[in-house]
Amino acid sequence: MEEAKANGPIGDCSGRTRVIAGPTNPMVTPLLTDLYQFTMAYAYWKAGKHNERAVFDLYFRKNPFGGEYTIFAGLEECTRFIANFKFAEEEIAFVRESLPSSCEDGFYDYLRGIDCSDVEVYSATEGSVVFPKVPLLRIEGPIAVVQLLETPFVNLINFASLVATNAARHRFVAGKSKMLLEFGLRRAQGPDGGIGASKYCYLGGFDATSNVAAGRLFGIPLRGTHSHAFVSSFTSPDEIIEKSLHRSDGSSICEDFVSLVQTWLRKIRYSSSFHDEFGETNQSELAAFTSYALAFPTNFLALVDTYDHLLSKVLRVVDDAQLINLNLSLSHYQTLAGPGAQADQFLVIRSGIPNFCAVALALCDLGYKAVGIRLDSGDLAYLSCESRKFFVAIEKEFGVADFGKMCITASNDLNEETLDALNKQGHEVDAFGIGTYLVTCYAQAALGCVFKLVEINDQPRIKLSEDVSKVSIPCKKRCYRLYGKEGYPLVDIMTGENEPSPKVGERILCRHPFNESKRAYVVPQHVEELLKCYWPGNSDKAREDLPPLKDIRQRCIEQLEKMRPDHMRRLNPTPYKVSVSAKLYDFIHFLWLNEAPVGELQ
Amino acid sequence: MEEAKANGPIGDCSGRTRVIAGPTNPMVTPLLTDLYQFTMAYAYWKAGKHNERAVFDLYFRKNPFGGEYTIFAGLEECTRFIANFKFAEEEIAFVRESLPSSCEDGFYDYLRGIDCSDVEVYSATEGSVVFPKVPLLRIEGPIAVVQLLETPFVNLINFASLVATNAARHRFVAGKSKMLLEFGLRRAQGPDGGIGASKYCYLGGFDATSNVAAGRLFGIPLRGTHSHAFVSSFTSPDEIIEKSLHRSDGSSICEDFVSLVQTWLRKIRYSSSFHDEFGETNQSELAAFTSYALAFPTNFLALVDTYDHLLSKVLRVVDDAQLINLNLSLSHYQTLAGPGAQADQFLVIRSGIPNFCAVALALCDLGYKAVGIRLDSGDLAYLSCESRKFFVAIEKEFGVADFGKMCITASNDLNEETLDALNKQGHEVDAFGIGTYLVTCYAQAALGCVFKLVEINDQPRIKLSEDVSKVSIPCKKRCYRLYGKEGYPLVDIMTGENEPSPKVGERILCRHPFNESKRAYVVPQHVEELLKCYWPGNSDKAREDLPPLKDIRQRCIEQLEKMRPDHMRRLNPTPYKVSVSAKLYDFIHFLWLNEAPVGELQ
Repeated sequence: MEEAKANGPIGDCSGRTRVIAGPTNPMVTPLLTDLYQFTMAYAYWKAGKHNERAVFDLYFRKNPFGGEYTIFAGLEECTRFIANFKFAEEEIAFVRESLPSSCEDGFYDYLRGIDCSDVEVYSATEGSVVFPKVPLLRIEGPIAVVQLLETPFVNLINFASLVATNAARHRFVAGKSKMLLEFGLRRAQGPDGGIGASKYCYLGGFDATSNVAAGRLFGIPLRGTHSHAFVSSFTSPDEIIEKSLHRSDGSSICEDFVSLVQTWLRKIRYSSSFHDEFGETNQSELAAFTSYALAFPTNFLALVDTYDHLLSKVLRVVDDAQLINLNLSLSHYQTLAGPGAQADQFLVIRSGIPNFCAVALALCDLGYKAVGIRLDSGDLAYLSCESRKFFVAIEKEFGVADFGKMCITASNDLNEETLDALNKQGHEVDAFGIGTYLVTCYAQAALGCVFKLVEINDQPRIKLSEDVSKVSIPCKKRCYRLYGKEGYPLVDIMTGENEPSPKVGERILCRHPFNESKRAYVVPQHVEELLKCYWPGNSDKAREDLPPLKDIRQRCIEQLEKMRPDHMRRLNPTPYKVSVSAKLYDFIHFLWLNEAPVGELQ
Repeated sequence: MEEAKANGPIGDCSGRTRVIAGPTNPMVTPLLTDLYQFTMAYAYWKAGKHNERAVFDLYFRKNPFGGEYTIFAGLEECTRFIANFKFAEEEIAFVRESLPSSCEDGFYDYLRGIDCSDVEVYSATEGSVVFPKVPLLRIEGPIAVVQLLETPFVNLINFASLVATNAARHRFVAGKSKMLLEFGLRRAQGPDGGIGASKYCYLGGFDATSNVAAGRLFGIPLRGTHSHAFVSSFTSPDEIIEKSLHRSDGSSICEDFVSLVQTWLRKIRYSSSFHDEFGETNQSELAAFTSYALAFPTNFLALVDTYDHLLSKVLRVVDDAQLINLNLSLSHYQTLAGPGAQADQFLVIRSGIPNFCAVALALCDLGYKAVGIRLDSGDLAYLSCESRKFFVAIEKEFGVADFGKMCITASNDLNEETLDALNKQGHEVDAFGIGTYLVTCYAQAALGCVFKLVEINDQPRIKLSEDVSKVSIPCKKRCYRLYGKEGYPLVDIMTGENEPSPKVGERILCRHPFNESKRAYVVPQHVEELLKCYWPGNSDKAREDLPPLKDIRQRCIEQLEKMRPDHMRRLNPTPYKVSVSAKLYDFIHFLWLNEAPVGELQ
C-alpha cells in the first residue's frame, strides 16, 4: 500500500503534491475526461473567463438498489488525482491534435501551467452514509480547471459509492456474524472494475477478497482454495507420489498420509452413524482433497460439490460397465433418474463430504485442524444443514472436538435476494463468497452522480428542469447532519455559506427544498458538519487526513450502525429527510423565478 | 497507440515477447488473479503435477441482453498479457506473504521461472460474431500456468465482449446511417471501465467517443462541445469583450460579431416565417453560444436546451418583476402552469433554437458553416422534428443553402429501448450520444464467461452438472462455422481434434450436444475454421496478427451484416444453431456416464 501517510494538517501546495501518491490506476490522468471539458476550457480561455471562480456540487439524486441510503466512496482517489494534476507535454500535444487547428497556441501554454493549487475541495468523509441532493463534494476554483475535473471526479466516485453501497447491503442481509468474501474479479467490468470492486466492497463491510492484486494494493485480506478443475485434474489416489506428512508439531512423520485417509474413509463408511449413508466416494475427488491437504495441512478447505448434480439421479439399475457400453444418450439417461425432491443433493453428502471428513480426520490425527468446505451449487440451505449434521455426527462418533463447527462457505451466484432467501429457509453457512452480482452491481449498474455549477463570481446559479428532482440547489452551501435524542441522525440540512450553523439545543426550521408544505422544527442533540476540507489548494485552510482503508471501513460500519433501522430495511425503507434552511429555501425559489424565462399567453 | 505491428508469422517466443506491448492497463499483472490460482499452483507443484499438459476452453453459456448473438472482444489484451507474463520479484514476495509459511521455497523459484512460452492459445477472431458453448479460446499448457491465466483472461474477455455486443445492439436499432457517440466515461464502472467501454463500443460499431484518454490510447475519433454549466456561466452578451472574428478565408475581420448575432436574431424574430413564434430569448444562453462560436467558428455545435423545461409552463400572467418580488414557492408556481401536451417543449424552440440560428447565420455571413445542435432533455422525437422545421424555414426564408440539413444530436439516458421508441415515433436526429446504459451494460451488467478443463495429459475431462446448460463439452476440439447457399452462417460445429474437417459440398451430421433428437444434415457451401493460433508459445506454429482496432471494428461490422436477419432482430430472435459432430456427441455421452458416480436403489 503506497498511500501517503505524511499528511500534515497545513502545508503549501507543492509540499502536499509531493506527499500524496498518484491515483491507484496509472490510467487516471488529466486526459481521462470528456473532450467537451477541453473545448469549454478553450472557449473560457478565449473569452477571458477561465479564471472566474466557480463552485460546483457533486451529488446524486436517488439512492441505488431501491434503498434509502448510500455509502460515499472514492474520495481518496479524487484527492490523489488533484494532488498530482499536471499535464505532460505529450498529453498537451494530444489535446492540440484533438482540437481544431484554429485554436491559439496561448491556450496550450495555459494548460501547461495549470495544476490544482487554486482549487479547494470540501467533501463528506469517505465511508460515511450519505443521501440524495446533499453535496458529497463541493469543488471551488477557476472554472476552466474545475470543469476539467468533472468527469474524472464523477467517474471515481460513481462506481466506488455504488459498489460500496452494494457491499453494505449484502452485509446487512447476511448479518454481522457471517464472513463475507468478494470473489468477483473474473466477472467485473474490466481489470480495475475488479480492483475497484475489491477495494470498495471491503470498505462497505466485506471481510476479504480473492483478488490478489487488490490484496497487494490495499492490504485487503485474501481468501481462496481450489476450483472444480483442480478436482477434475486428478484421477485416483494412486497418482499421489509424495505421500508423507509431518505432524503439525514436527515430532514425527506420517509416511503414508494417503493410506491414513483411506483408513478414515473406511471407518466413516462402516461406522454405526453412517452405515448405508454412502457407497463408493469419487476417487478423483478423494485424490484431489488428499493432495490439497498435503500441500496445505494447516489450511485445508475443500470444494465438495464437483461430483454433485444430476448424477445421483441415476439409480443403480444397470451396472457400471453396462451403462458405459450402452453409450446411452442423455435423454435415455434422464429417464433412469429416480424421483425425490432432493435426490440431486445426495452426492455432496455421498462423496464430497465423506471424502472431506476422511482427509480432515487424517489431518486431525497429525495434529492439524481442517478449515472447512465450500459449496458451489445446489440447494445451499439444505446442503449446508446436511453437511453440518454430518460434521456433528463425526464429532460425536469419533470424539473429535469442534469438528461440528467446521466452517461452511457457500458461493454460486449469490446476491441480496438469495442471501435473504437462505436466511428464511434456515442454513448453516458461515461464510459467503459473492461475485458477479456484487461487483458489477447487477441490480443497478450505475449511480447517477452529477456535477453542477452552483455559483460563479459569487453569483449563485441554478440548473432548472421540468423534472423537479433534477433542479439543482444553488449557492455555495454548508451541510450539517442533525442528531436526535436517541442518537440517530434525524435530518441533513443545507444552508447558505454565511448562515450561522445549527446549534445543539436550538430549534431550527428544516424545509424540503422544493415542497412548500414539507417542513419540520428540529432541536438537534448533536450537530455534525458534513463537508470538510480535503484539498485546500494554496489557501491556508487545514487539510483533513486521508485515513487508511481499514479505518474508512471501520467508520462505514460504525456509521451504518448509527442509522435508524427503518431507513436500512430492505422492504419499504423510510426515506431519510434532506432539507434546506428557511433562508436557503426562500432564495432557491427567488432565483428560480428570476432565472426562468416566462411564457406567453396567446 | 502503442500496439505492436511487427508481428511476424513465425518467430521464437522471446522475439515475440519483445514486439507485443504489455496490457493497456498497467494494473493487469500476473497478480490480477484469484488467490486460489496460486494455492492450486502450489498444490500442483507439490504433487509434481504442475507441468501436466492441460487444455481449457473459455466460453459463455448464454447470449446477453435477451439476444441470440455476442461479439467477441478482448483478445488483443489477453495476448498482450501472456506475451509479457512474468513475475516481478516484489510480486513473488507478495505471493509468499499471502500463502501459508509452510509453503516450500522451491515453489517461489518455480514461479520466478515461469512465462507463457509453453502455452498455446487458439482463439476466435476478435470482433467476430460468436455463440454459446463454442470455445472463444482454447488454452493449452502446463496446468499450473494455464490456471494462473484463468481469472485475467475471463476478466479481460467478459466485459469487452459484453459491451461490444451492447454497442452492436445499439447500432442495430439506430441504423447504419446514424452517427453513434459513446459519452459514458463519467458513469462507467471505474476509470478503465470507462476506457474499456470506449474501446469496445467503437469495436462494436460506434463512431466516436467523448473519452480523451481512450481517443489517445486507441485512436478513436473524439467528439464533444459544451455542457449546461457552460451556458449557465454566462450572464449576457455584454460580458463578451473580444468580439472580433476573421472571415473563414481570412480576407477580412468582423469587428463586432456580437452585434452581427443580435442583428440576425432580430431578423429571425421579425421575419414573416417566425413572427410571433418566440419572444425574448435567454440572454445568457445567447452569450454562451456567441462566445463558443468565437472560440470554435469552424465547429459550432450548441447545446440548446439549458432553458428548456417547466419554465415554459409559466404563463405571462404576472410581469417579471412582480413574479420575482412575490418570491413564489414552487407549488404556487406550478399552479400557474398552463395546459398543453407539449407546452414544456416550447422553450427549446423559443430560446435555444433561435439563439443557435442567429449565431449560425452570423457565422455563415463570415463564410463558416455551423455544425448543429444537441438536445439533452425533453421529448427528443418532437424536439428534433420541430428543430428541423425551424432549420428548413430558415433555409427558405434567408436562402442559406443546406441550413435545413443542420446536424441534430440527441442525448439523455438513451438505450436500445428509447432508440427503438424514437424510431417508432419518427424523429430527425442525426447523431445519438449514449452513456450510462451503454457503458455499464445496464440491461445486463455481466457476461458469464467460464474457463473449463476439457483435457489433461491427453485424457478428456467433462464438468458435469445437474443443469445441462452447465455441462462442459470435453476434449481438445476444433470448431467450424458452416455457411449455406445464401451466404449466411448456418451452424457452428465442434469436432474432436483429430476428426477430418467438414468439407465444402460434403454432407455432415450436426448434432445438438445434449439433445438426442435435435440433429441435422448440412452441406456447407463454405467452411470457416473458427479457432486460430494467436499465441504459439515456443511451438513452430504460425501466429495470427493482431490487427489494429479500426480493422477489428470493420470485421465486426461485416460479420454482423453476414448474419441471417432473424438471428439479429430484437423481438424473438431465432437462436443460431451450435452443434457437435456425431463422433463427439457419442464421446460426450460415453464420458458422461463414465464419470458419473451411480446412485443406489434402496
